[in-house]
Amino acid sequence: MKKGNILGGAFHTSTLTVVGLGLMGGSLALALRPHADTIIGVDPNPETLAYAKANGIIDVGTDDLREGVSQAETVILAAPVRVIVELLERKLVSFLRYNTLVIDIGSTKQEIVRAMSKLPIGIHAIGGHPMAGKEHSGIQHAEARILIGRPFVLTPTERRTPATLSRAVALVESIGAVPVQMDAARHDQTVATISHLPYIISSALVATTAYQAQVDPAVWQLASSGFRDTSRLASSDIKMMMDILGTNKQAVTTMLAFFRMQLAQLEALLISGDEVGLVNFLSAIRDTRNEWWLNQQKGAK
Amino acid sequence: MKKGNILGGAFHTSTLTVVGLGLMGGSLALALRPHADTIIGVDPNPETLAYAKANGIIDVGTDDLREGVSQAETVILAAPVRVIVELLERKLVSFLRYNTLVIDIGSTKQEIVRAMSKLPIGIHAIGGHPMAGKEHSGIQHAEARILIGRPFVLTPTERRTPATLSRAVALVESIGAVPVQMDAARHDQTVATISHLPYIISSALVATTAYQAQVDPAVWQLASSGFRDTSRLASSDIKMMMDILGTNKQAVTTMLAFFRMQLAQLEALLISGDEVGLVNFLSAIRDTRNEWWLNQQKGAK
Repeated sequence: MKKGNILGGAFHTSTLTVVGLGLMGGSLALALRPHADTIIGVDPNPETLAYAKANGIIDVGTDDLREGVSQAETVILAAPVRVIVELLERKLVSFLRYNTLVIDIGSTKQEIVRAMSKLPIGIHAIGGHPMAGKEHSGIQHAEARILIGRPFVLTPTERRTPATLSRAVALVESIGAVPVQMDAARHDQTVATISHLPYIISSALVATTAYQAQVDPAVWQLASSGFRDTSRLASSDIKMMMDILGTNKQAVTTMLAFFRMQLAQLEALLISGDEVGLVNFLSAIRDTRNEWWLNQQKGAK
Repeated sequence: MKKGNILGGAFHTSTLTVVGLGLMGGSLALALRPHADTIIGVDPNPETLAYAKANGIIDVGTDDLREGVSQAETVILAAPVRVIVELLERKLVSFLRYNTLVIDIGSTKQEIVRAMSKLPIGIHAIGGHPMAGKEHSGIQHAEARILIGRPFVLTPTERRTPATLSRAVALVESIGAVPVQMDAARHDQTVATISHLPYIISSALVATTAYQAQVDPAVWQLASSGFRDTSRLASSDIKMMMDILGTNKQAVTTMLAFFRMQLAQLEALLISGDEVGLVNFLSAIRDTRNEWWLNQQKGAK
């Protein structure tokens, strides 16, 4: 995995347009505030635009894509994956200026990078995915600092121009995130493991609890902090998750098969009464998780 | 499910002994501080005893069980399940005064209540399980307030004496927790759903990630807040969890079978490309989880 630092440089852009003002779009606009002369926000929701303008997240708001992007030097697409693909394939292309940097923050990258590869030569497009999140979505929860110290994956298109990568790396570094260059396929397999699989098992846990609640509703009364955390992802935005699952089916179902394998091993140890085997397996898992979490906390400092 | 309020009354005890000074034992000692003349802590670890004494959690500390419990009017057993069973079946019985209230906070209740039922008639024993927790264990994280507003399950023994229940209800209410009376078998099935199953799937998720990391260690680098929450329970104390799984095997494996059923349904919808079916299923799950979480937050106020 290459870190992009050597390619980076100070980032400044005249006009930045953020298409889609949700939690991440809003957070990016806030983080890029010092590095852009003008920030334009494009969103279909007038209340979102009003909120973003009133809170200094954007300078100008519009629901008109052409108006929003035609003067931009940098465009960030911050929408669900299939909306981004649709923008790239149909709507966006005729509105962009020559030499514009187009970066997205969609949660899966193969379909987006494929669409980016078909853009005209003069458009500098690259896939992006900041690995940060919050329990709550929506622009009212946007914060510049949620990106600081977090990996920001960059997935080049087939063209792989060094100039595009260097501008994207500079953008990522200007907001304090850590650029991580990776092929789109590798990105999608990785996030299937650490993000899409957790969403599915979290949802299956809630479904199982609801099933058991038909027999005894006490499950809802006694559920506590452990259930809260394990089930948290089941509250994710459905449109966002449907686009993720729909564009990463093979990787997600592969990880589900691997997950069933591990689950079966735990169950076999439990049913067989092999306490030594179960202690060893669970201890190794706990150590692995603790080591990861310790490194995360170190990284955050 | 009966709430015990009608039976409750002001709780006061001369000498309270807490056996096992971990997070919950320490939190209970702190919460019961205003309701006990003297608090004795029993723990094998001299550093734990010194910490508890220095921080006013207990008045007297000892590693000698007989010394700790022989003057107690109230005894709380706060240890892993099989340690509690061992105490009840062998060590404790000859040391207790007549008319002592014995309550435990073990995470499964059937084996404990069975052992309690064999205590001499003069001992008032009842099973207990406060539904509260924290990411970190150990007495240094103990807090009186983690029990406030939380359900505190009480599982009577075969004898079911109203006097025992009434004293236990008064104790629970004195610390601001909510007494919930329930049979031990029903308790164990319920916590298998909302606590033990989440632990196993959280552990299987970490094992799956470690498995995928052998192919590509980038999974550890990109894992973010979603993975953190879903994998949190995999960091649980192994001895505690082994005692839980070992004493609740049938309920846990039943819930694992139900979980696989729900997982298979999600997978079938995903693979078949039935987007409408998948949206409907995931939306119902999200609504269920959000409704539970909203009620939890209301309850906490």
